[in-house]
Amino acid sequence: MTVDIVVLRQQLQGLDGESYAAALEERLPEAEISVARTPSEERALLRTAQIAAGTNIDPEAVERAENLELFAGTYAGTEHLPLDVLEDHGIAVTNGSGVHGPNIAEYVLGSILSFARGFPTAWRQKERREWQAFQTHELQGSTVTVIGLGAIGQAVLQRLEPFGVHTIGLRYTPEKGGPADEIAGLEGEALHDALARSDYVVVASPLTETTRGLIDETALETMSPDSVLVNIARGPIVETEALVSELQRNGIRGAALDVTDPEPLPADHELWGLDNVFLTPHHAGFTPNYWERRADILAENVEIAAETGSFDGLVNQVR
Amino acid sequence: MTVDIVVLRQQLQGLDGESYAAALEERLPEAEISVARTPSEERALLRTAQIAAGTNIDPEAVERAENLELFAGTYAGTEHLPLDVLEDHGIAVTNGSGVHGPNIAEYVLGSILSFARGFPTAWRQKERREWQAFQTHELQGSTVTVIGLGAIGQAVLQRLEPFGVHTIGLRYTPEKGGPADEIAGLEGEALHDALARSDYVVVASPLTETTRGLIDETALETMSPDSVLVNIARGPIVETEALVSELQRNGIRGAALDVTDPEPLPADHELWGLDNVFLTPHHAGFTPNYWERRADILAENVEIAAETGSFDGLVNQVR
Repeated sequence: MTVDIVVLRQQLQGLDGESYAAALEERLPEAEISVARTPSEERALLRTAQIAAGTNIDPEAVERAENLELFAGTYAGTEHLPLDVLEDHGIAVTNGSGVHGPNIAEYVLGSILSFARGFPTAWRQKERREWQAFQTHELQGSTVTVIGLGAIGQAVLQRLEPFGVHTIGLRYTPEKGGPADEIAGLEGEALHDALARSDYVVVASPLTETTRGLIDETALETMSPDSVLVNIARGPIVETEALVSELQRNGIRGAALDVTDPEPLPADHELWGLDNVFLTPHHAGFTPNYWERRADILAENVEIAAETGSFDGLVNQVR
Repeated sequence: MTVDIVVLRQQLQGLDGESYAAALEERLPEAEISVARTPSEERALLRTAQIAAGTNIDPEAVERAENLELFAGTYAGTEHLPLDVLEDHGIAVTNGSGVHGPNIAEYVLGSILSFARGFPTAWRQKERREWQAFQTHELQGSTVTVIGLGAIGQAVLQRLEPFGVHTIGLRYTPEKGGPADEIAGLEGEALHDALARSDYVVVASPLTETTRGLIDETALETMSPDSVLVNIARGPIVETEALVSELQRNGIRGAALDVTDPEPLPADHELWGLDNVFLTPHHAGFTPNYWERRADILAENVEIAAETGSFDGLVNQVR
């Protein structure tokens, strides 16, 4: 089966669809891979392609697509896609879940260790050319809670393993278990018990009705003044106003935020000015290896479809 | 056996001998533990004590000590101690080796991840309230060389384990092996082969005649322009002038230095001004848990001495 793939227009963190297409060509030498560079190219190519790979797809383009069998979404989240329309047309959908495991886990461990060892203070002292000892913490012996045990949460827990910490994993379906010392649910009692005992709280869950605003004023109040919040999931899982006020009064020790609400964070936002905040522009998941891992998923799915003759039972299939 | 321990004057990173004495008292409720607060208290207490615990000891005090059987050194290094005089008087010497394993390894992993994920850029952008994506690296798939496989080098390698990196361990006696994917010696050929293949080079060896100036101009030239040097051992293992010039011309990607030569680093030193340098004031090994681990060693040795009736076969015994 020769497949016809269109790579839709997408620019992520300075890398574009060309990088993705190149990675796909390496893996699928027999596929016909086209890169859409303009909206009109996109419309034309989508009309005949079997597979579309991109961040989103226009519902009207779905209506007009004659051969589309799979939309391979770039992101882990699919809440922004026209899922109803795709379903109506029997088009399979896969997401990018899992591609972010290693890189986001590295970001999380780097943030945790930076806060544990006082790196923010070190950077400030360096700016002032100050050789002066300062008190630091040690990660060993700490308790770390990870909220959300998907690919990212699990990658974080695996990398915490040799650091001698106690880990608590919280997930919507605790019966699924996970690589943590304790597993519990996301409901009030379990959440607050974990927050109260944690030195580091890592938010790694998808944004759902359950998780929107999960880390609110009450949750932040439960957290210890020595604790650090790391959010690499979605901004609205944490209530921004409550977080700012908690950080301003040193209610928690600090926060590492790769995601914020709103996003991008306006230049006059109070979070920028807080010394106990580490901020990055929603790019913890993006490294040069990103497209390679995206291409791995799609190539695997093309092979599955070739073998089974259908776009069912794919890797990362959402519907 | 009731032992008489004097804790000599020592102030390390804002923690003093009192913290050490308190940790010792918890572990050795039957020992007589005195803290010397002034030079004259120190002289008086040393005259009769069986065990002295401190960073250094005056050769004249050794001469006058009547009951001294053990000098429990605070530091891992013992090159600064009057070892000849201690030997002449048959006084056992232990060092603080191993107490730094977990905390220094955390510092090393934090530094490596900071450089991999572009945290220095993130901190600078935050100062300017700039929400802007920037290119980062990924640690996974990298090659990391650790020079020196003592307690610290091994703790670093253990913590690198789940990050999916290739590790090379270099040590003076490669036949001793270690927890790395490859083990080699410190001589020219082996060193340069490892440096040429490494994305991260961690210096974790003691300062000896072999390691002084080990990372010189030639070694730095062998390192890739994408590579990062981490020195948590001793400043003089790296030739400072060669390092500065290499960093100035981006011959290597960056350096994380907890130790420098000279130390403290003067305010007008060029290292302070380099964007690709992370600098801390020789304190990677000091956390509030430091004295706890020091006290563990001494308490264990007191127990060994009580059982065997001699100050031989101690933990961390240097002579």
